[in-house]
Amino acid sequence: MRLDHIGVAVKNASQAAEKLSKALGVRPYMEEVVESEGVKVVGLRIGEVDIELLEPLSEDTPVGRFLSKHGEGVHHIALAVEDIEKAMRRASEAGLKLLDSKPRTGARGRKVAFIHPKSAFGILLELVEG
Amino acid sequence: MRLDHIGVAVKNASQAAEKLSKALGVRPYMEEVVESEGVKVVGLRIGEVDIELLEPLSEDTPVGRFLSKHGEGVHHIALAVEDIEKAMRRASEAGLKLLDSKPRTGARGRKVAFIHPKSAFGILLELVEG
Repeated sequence: MRLDHIGVAVKNASQAAEKLSKALGVRPYMEEVVESEGVKVVGLRIGEVDIELLEPLSEDTPVGRFLSKHGEGVHHIALAVEDIEKAMRRASEAGLKLLDSKPRTGARGRKVAFIHPKSAFGILLELVEG
Repeated sequence: MRLDHIGVAVKNASQAAEKLSKALGVRPYMEEVVESEGVKVVGLRIGEVDIELLEPLSEDTPVGRFLSKHGEGVHHIALAVEDIEKAMRRASEAGLKLLDSKPRTGARGRKVAFIHPKSAFGILLELVEG
């Protein structure tokens, strides 16, 4: 298992990427619109981990609702696992509550599943296969 | 630059470590009381990044106040840099607001400095030398 990315909800992903990349001395490496999640994503690479800046395409999306409620900030933490079904089973057996009963397709076509933050100490955890 | 750790504010670090380590198939690797920060820290290693579970020693501490206001969740993200003075200068020049004008001593004796979340898209960023 490794840390894959940290998703950060922001109002304007391009502006945030420009400021943070200057501030940290790194470069934006990808930009993608994920229609199924209702977000524009701009990625910064910090060593082996990505910071994904998530800009909602509309207010009525998961990230749009997060922004309205909490303002900008860390939205989720994604862990890369070899076998997502096995990782989901292990998490569930330890008392974490899965938001997805089966893996679904996330950004870049990968299998993903989310864990409810109330069961994981306030952290919205994403499991990503690969 | 690399991602060093993610600090998560929790009510009980040992219980959180036990549940998360089972759920994710990792092991707690360190436990430390940092009196200067008013926290007990239990660390989980996820690949090359640490998850630091931060339990306040009292309510009147930075993490204690965070818990009262926000509940459990991601408290800060720490980036390891080679030269902290240089990293602080670059961040400041790009418009991030430093909470420390000079580096101070953090956990494990390392030089650290924090960046105000309002200037960094809601993320409390910690720069760590080493």
